[in-house]
Amino acid sequence: MGGGSLNVFSARHLLVASLALNASLLFRVYIGGFSPALDLLSLCSLSVSKGYEAAAPDVDAASPAAVSVLASSSKTAEHRLVDHGRIINLDHGDPTMYEKFWQGTGDRATIVIPGWQSTSYFSDPGNLCWFLEPELGRQIVRLHGIVGNAVTDGRHIVVGTGSTQLFLAVLYALCPQNVTDPVSVVSMAPFYSSYPTTTDCLRSGLYRWAGDAASFDGGDGPFVELVTSPNNPDGFLRDPVVNRSGGVLVHDFAYYWPQYTAMTSPPANHDITLFTVSKSTGHAGIRIGWALVKDADVARKMTKFIELNSIGVSKDSQLRAAKIMKVVSDAEEDGSKQGDPPAVAARSLFEFGFENMEERWRLLREAVKQSSLFSLPDYPAQFCNFNRRSFGNQPAFAWLKCEGEIEDCEGFFREKKILTRSGVHFGDSPKYVRISMLDRDDNYLAFIKRLRSL
Amino acid sequence: MGGGSLNVFSARHLLVASLALNASLLFRVYIGGFSPALDLLSLCSLSVSKGYEAAAPDVDAASPAAVSVLASSSKTAEHRLVDHGRIINLDHGDPTMYEKFWQGTGDRATIVIPGWQSTSYFSDPGNLCWFLEPELGRQIVRLHGIVGNAVTDGRHIVVGTGSTQLFLAVLYALCPQNVTDPVSVVSMAPFYSSYPTTTDCLRSGLYRWAGDAASFDGGDGPFVELVTSPNNPDGFLRDPVVNRSGGVLVHDFAYYWPQYTAMTSPPANHDITLFTVSKSTGHAGIRIGWALVKDADVARKMTKFIELNSIGVSKDSQLRAAKIMKVVSDAEEDGSKQGDPPAVAARSLFEFGFENMEERWRLLREAVKQSSLFSLPDYPAQFCNFNRRSFGNQPAFAWLKCEGEIEDCEGFFREKKILTRSGVHFGDSPKYVRISMLDRDDNYLAFIKRLRSL
Repeated sequence: MGGGSLNVFSARHLLVASLALNASLLFRVYIGGFSPALDLLSLCSLSVSKGYEAAAPDVDAASPAAVSVLASSSKTAEHRLVDHGRIINLDHGDPTMYEKFWQGTGDRATIVIPGWQSTSYFSDPGNLCWFLEPELGRQIVRLHGIVGNAVTDGRHIVVGTGSTQLFLAVLYALCPQNVTDPVSVVSMAPFYSSYPTTTDCLRSGLYRWAGDAASFDGGDGPFVELVTSPNNPDGFLRDPVVNRSGGVLVHDFAYYWPQYTAMTSPPANHDITLFTVSKSTGHAGIRIGWALVKDADVARKMTKFIELNSIGVSKDSQLRAAKIMKVVSDAEEDGSKQGDPPAVAARSLFEFGFENMEERWRLLREAVKQSSLFSLPDYPAQFCNFNRRSFGNQPAFAWLKCEGEIEDCEGFFREKKILTRSGVHFGDSPKYVRISMLDRDDNYLAFIKRLRSL
Repeated sequence: MGGGSLNVFSARHLLVASLALNASLLFRVYIGGFSPALDLLSLCSLSVSKGYEAAAPDVDAASPAAVSVLASSSKTAEHRLVDHGRIINLDHGDPTMYEKFWQGTGDRATIVIPGWQSTSYFSDPGNLCWFLEPELGRQIVRLHGIVGNAVTDGRHIVVGTGSTQLFLAVLYALCPQNVTDPVSVVSMAPFYSSYPTTTDCLRSGLYRWAGDAASFDGGDGPFVELVTSPNNPDGFLRDPVVNRSGGVLVHDFAYYWPQYTAMTSPPANHDITLFTVSKSTGHAGIRIGWALVKDADVARKMTKFIELNSIGVSKDSQLRAAKIMKVVSDAEEDGSKQGDPPAVAARSLFEFGFENMEERWRLLREAVKQSSLFSLPDYPAQFCNFNRRSFGNQPAFAWLKCEGEIEDCEGFFREKKILTRSGVHFGDSPKYVRISMLDRDDNYLAFIKRLRSL
């Protein structure tokens, strides 16, 4: 797609704009009025109706109290659709927004696995990462090439059970077994709420969580700095902040995709970069992440960790991830090759993601503007080499601040039966909350509606 | 199948005996003579020919030297079939023997997963283990009920990325975060070679490997005793050996299935029991294990660990495991209900496994008897409630001892280009080696042939 002519983009934009208009109209009809009939109509159009949107526990259990409330909440469709006072859970980053896209791709993304497959632990015995399915490796390289978000030349690919396992594998690989003091692991606040708990849960002698990278004072000891860009929770692009040698950088690029942020040239070219399908294609449940690693020894040790931790990574999910990435890349290449707007059957995932994020952010900013209770970050516009647009970040999470006298923003929303995650879990103030922007339409729209009513 | 009448079993045995006779004839033709034409013929009949049998690195890297040798070994079919002097790798426990069975089940074990599935992290939000696919939970309960190897009533099921991740989850769940000294983890030697490395790889402050349970002297501190039964590597049934209170037992029952050992009544009824599809159905590459856990708090903490470690377990592989277990259980129930021998299309996995293990052990014992170089353990016969036979264990690994002056048994075999795992990795003498009995036919038969020639 990066190589498409302006004409291609004009034609594609026309279609996309028309689709967006339709989506926007539905959004407006729904959140504009309060007629139950209209609500029902628009929700039926938008809902994917899997029946468990509202009843999911917190992924990293930041709000244990919320879990029990959720477990007892009604799951019936009626309850969901009438939507007066039901719990809206936007605490965790479940990317169910993408389900609708994949429902529209027909059989092309379907995978068929016969019973005789996967009796061996091994996928590619000659490869450094012996449990990486070769086809997944190929599709990862291809997708990065098309999107232009990372250099893959001269990199080893290590696959993991989500990028969480890869994060742990990186720590194992970077921290020598014979250290006297654990290596410090830091990230600038606000940082991903799982970093501290995942790092410290086993009280490892190899590494320990040392908090905010901006105020890190670890003497001259070794350290690992996590650079999450765009950042979870606040959505800003980031560079390293610790200003001394002796550290290793790990770039967590889960959200470095063109639906969330502009792809600026050149492609990222770091020593260790982590990616995941959860936030790129939206398949959180298949638990597939990958690392691009420059140093062979680091890649080998990461592989060793995953061997010790789970003897490799599900082959089924690797094959599925490969298939899904292939469908994504095929659509991009077909579009740019033929010069025609992509057929409905070969839509661009990134266009779908971009339009949805743009519209969701527009609705959120509109609702926030209506009241003086909240504020949102502003993101500077940048030109994207991939989609040829100039736009500011439209992150997968909203980092919302409660203004004025509201000190406990999470508590404020909980009273309104909106579950968010407090800033304190991210090393920041309770005046902030993180709100998922990737939930299914009906849940997200119900949130906007309730926000408007505050 | 446990409920089948004697007639049923007589009829089934007739078919099974005839199948076994055919297999046995092929085995004999192959290992009896050295005519290249015959070798080619019988290997072609037996080989599943996936092309990477001989070139797989060691799962827990007990023999790093071996890996580089393997990587450079030829993978061509010709090389494999002529089989003069090629490397035979039986170091790791890759259960590829089962591939042939699953190739015979046709479409019934095939799974189709559309692209829109698995956008959510959650499988069953109301369940303690929120990432367990409900259908997998049902099939686990059903299979244990049919086989009679474990009580599932009053148990929580926790699914893991293989039983390795569950083992780590158990340690996390059993060892309090605030311990001063790490809890001791012990198992009677010879013990599974991964226990020490997996336990100690992060130098956790919660637990540490404390070696052989038989000589454990941990004062009065808390401990976890791993009871692996049948045991890896030596195949014996086991009971706990630490004779004091203050410990928690974890039963690793990866091999407690009727192809390896008799199901004696009553079904196992322990606090924490680990299982895996790798060694039951033979699907090592899908990385699915499960724990049956009596105490809700322990199950909850295990779930928490897997959340911190990998935010759940691949949904695709869970659904596949459920489908595979369903096919296994359906075949057993059809057989016992109809009173007819199972159709070729609905063979019993456990019969297939039993006959193969029986034949492989017969060939191994015959070859060992021919020379005075080696010895093997003897296993007492027990009556099996499941298959109504009386038989001694026929383990997934042979625990072979080099007699006389051979002190380094692994080295002895390595010179003959047979890769095994030394007893030292299992906390035992280098006079022992562990040899996988679950490899594909051609690899196993090549091993027997070479053993005969020593």
